[in-house]
Amino acid sequence: MVKVQTLKGFRDFLPKEAKKRQYVINTLKSVFESYGFEPLETPALEYEEVLLGKYGEEGDKLMYRFVDNGDRKVALRYDQTVPTARVVAQYQNELPMPFKRYQIQPVWRAENTQKGRFREFLQCDADIVGSTSPLSDAEVIAVAGKSVEALGFKKYKIIINDRTVFVNISKEAITTIDKLKKIGREKVIDELVSKGIAKTPSDAASILSSIEGKAETERIKKIFSSLEKLGVEKSTYEFSPTLARGLDYYTGLIFEIEIDGYTAGSVCGGGRYDELIGMFAGRDIPAVGFAFGFDRLMEAMDELKLFPDDLQTTKVLVTVFSKELLEKSLEISSQLRSNNINCELYLNENTPLEKQLKYADQKSIPYAVIIGPEETKNNTVTLRNMKSRTQEILSISSLVENVAAPSATDSF
Amino acid sequence: MVKVQTLKGFRDFLPKEAKKRQYVINTLKSVFESYGFEPLETPALEYEEVLLGKYGEEGDKLMYRFVDNGDRKVALRYDQTVPTARVVAQYQNELPMPFKRYQIQPVWRAENTQKGRFREFLQCDADIVGSTSPLSDAEVIAVAGKSVEALGFKKYKIIINDRTVFVNISKEAITTIDKLKKIGREKVIDELVSKGIAKTPSDAASILSSIEGKAETERIKKIFSSLEKLGVEKSTYEFSPTLARGLDYYTGLIFEIEIDGYTAGSVCGGGRYDELIGMFAGRDIPAVGFAFGFDRLMEAMDELKLFPDDLQTTKVLVTVFSKELLEKSLEISSQLRSNNINCELYLNENTPLEKQLKYADQKSIPYAVIIGPEETKNNTVTLRNMKSRTQEILSISSLVENVAAPSATDSF
Repeated sequence: MVKVQTLKGFRDFLPKEAKKRQYVINTLKSVFESYGFEPLETPALEYEEVLLGKYGEEGDKLMYRFVDNGDRKVALRYDQTVPTARVVAQYQNELPMPFKRYQIQPVWRAENTQKGRFREFLQCDADIVGSTSPLSDAEVIAVAGKSVEALGFKKYKIIINDRTVFVNISKEAITTIDKLKKIGREKVIDELVSKGIAKTPSDAASILSSIEGKAETERIKKIFSSLEKLGVEKSTYEFSPTLARGLDYYTGLIFEIEIDGYTAGSVCGGGRYDELIGMFAGRDIPAVGFAFGFDRLMEAMDELKLFPDDLQTTKVLVTVFSKELLEKSLEISSQLRSNNINCELYLNENTPLEKQLKYADQKSIPYAVIIGPEETKNNTVTLRNMKSRTQEILSISSLVENVAAPSATDSF
Repeated sequence: MVKVQTLKGFRDFLPKEAKKRQYVINTLKSVFESYGFEPLETPALEYEEVLLGKYGEEGDKLMYRFVDNGDRKVALRYDQTVPTARVVAQYQNELPMPFKRYQIQPVWRAENTQKGRFREFLQCDADIVGSTSPLSDAEVIAVAGKSVEALGFKKYKIIINDRTVFVNISKEAITTIDKLKKIGREKVIDELVSKGIAKTPSDAASILSSIEGKAETERIKKIFSSLEKLGVEKSTYEFSPTLARGLDYYTGLIFEIEIDGYTAGSVCGGGRYDELIGMFAGRDIPAVGFAFGFDRLMEAMDELKLFPDDLQTTKVLVTVFSKELLEKSLEISSQLRSNNINCELYLNENTPLEKQLKYADQKSIPYAVIIGPEETKNNTVTLRNMKSRTQEILSISSLVENVAAPSATDSF
């Protein structure tokens, strides 16, 4: 007997959850497209050699790799940046530059699931390839900020730095200083000493202070001036010279977005990485962009209750009173649909009405329509508000008006 | 040096193609949802034992299977029906029945690519699980038909049969008769004889005639009566007793949709399969549904030129006249966006205007806005129609009006 289960770290998304994901994806897409970003799709499988060695030792270890039926060494998509780099090299003669693309596809990593990580998760990136201008740095920050706003987050902060402030500072020191927000000043000083980066706590404190005291670079000043012109509210972003971000491929701008009231970490990170996208083209190609942590975004939206109530796509359940009156229900359902009202016809003419109404409740459908003998005789319908459990008798034309109204849920 | 290439049978979708796919997906979703179907997502990887043996010998051979890092035998999604069967068993206590779900995800099959088949392709299914009523048969036919209409196909035919008309007819005979449309009457008769199903051509002809002469079953009559009430145009469907469809898992209704003027084959197929979905639950669970051949649908839409002209999501390129006038361009782009007009700001303040306009052409952006010294002085902009290559000078408020108008492309 087959065990009925999903693989560890993999998830089914039943309708309620799938709709919420759809809502976030659609919202992000519409913001990305409002700035001229366009969709890109790449295959789930690539030649192993395209991906191998691009994500460090850890990446090679966590990658899903296998030999296919044709003896090819293949690997499952691990991120969306390396495939984009391949696309940029492969189609360099046909892609208009700058190439502004967004990509929203699943990636697979054999992560340790105990850390609450998943082995299949959606990545959600927007990047500008082929521009060195500070304008493009400003634009990606603006797009990321507008995305967060479009999802309904009221209070958030875009924390911005320039990797060049770390010139002459060891990688180890940067990694430690990056933890400032997480572990606090005192522990950072301890770590600087214990790692031998500073000789004494007071040495460590002065290293730290010297970084904290760094002023905005010329580049950051230009970016901030563009942000202002782009209508990005000044209170939503700030310069933070101690922000480092883990990945060492960034070459200039780096930024993260933190949501007020959501403590699991930043929901978005990005920056400029001018030495990565050209890896297959054999020359440096500048790039700047960001990625949303989709699962974190979903979690933050849940916690802050930002999902709209009406993600329910079906507005009306048209019940079937009896076999004899089925015809009427069919007609009403068809009429509602031709008025662009999403409705579901109950698909069994022998089910008691009570059970049909329970089904509407289970599926959170806001309205039910009942067409019994009385209604049929008078050419009316009974409209039941499933939430308030109130009913009223309506003509068919006012039925359409009533359920089509956007505020209909509260109207009686 | 890494060879920069995609795997055989796998495809990149650059923005132009990705947008067309998005358009078809969104159109289908909105029809599915108008009938109360809801999205379901399942993982790309399943335990091998969940999928193995479910698609016949051929299926097991074409399946992408491997052993993961944790020594689990896993397989990539091969279709969406078996994972749905798993979901129905796994969540049987929480899923409202009937369970009406649609699923639009890629599947992987190590097909022979020489037949023009792909190894990664999108499946697009809608199914009703848990209802035996002819109403649900009618509904899936109606949904499939409306989907085809929503995509813009004017002439199509839904060919409908009931598998029960083949009772007492051998599987081999059915397979041969199913080819009637493709190879014609004469060749079917030849095959019936050569396969030993009929002794003589005249015997074969009479077998054929007896099937062709079959009347609509009682079930089909009920379905047709519901179709009429659901507002499905009678000219769009017909009973065809020789339609068999390859898969033997159908237990009642079967149907296909053919598009007039598209000869590569049917774009949609479906039917009732009451003995499949319960495979993991250990009991029969009725189901009826259909699947669109997504790549065929795309091909048919291309051939019949059904894609709208304005899939271009960016409406305006805001050019940058010079470093000094950059500020003005930033402001205009921000103003357009706050009026819900998707626009792209050219991301380099040093690029000659001519090259910027060429970029708009390359990306098929319908409008370009130019803000030079003259325009800045007069608080106006120049709006260039990229198609007609005409320009006019406008105030900023009339700029918004001009490009926001839906018929704007042809307006001057």
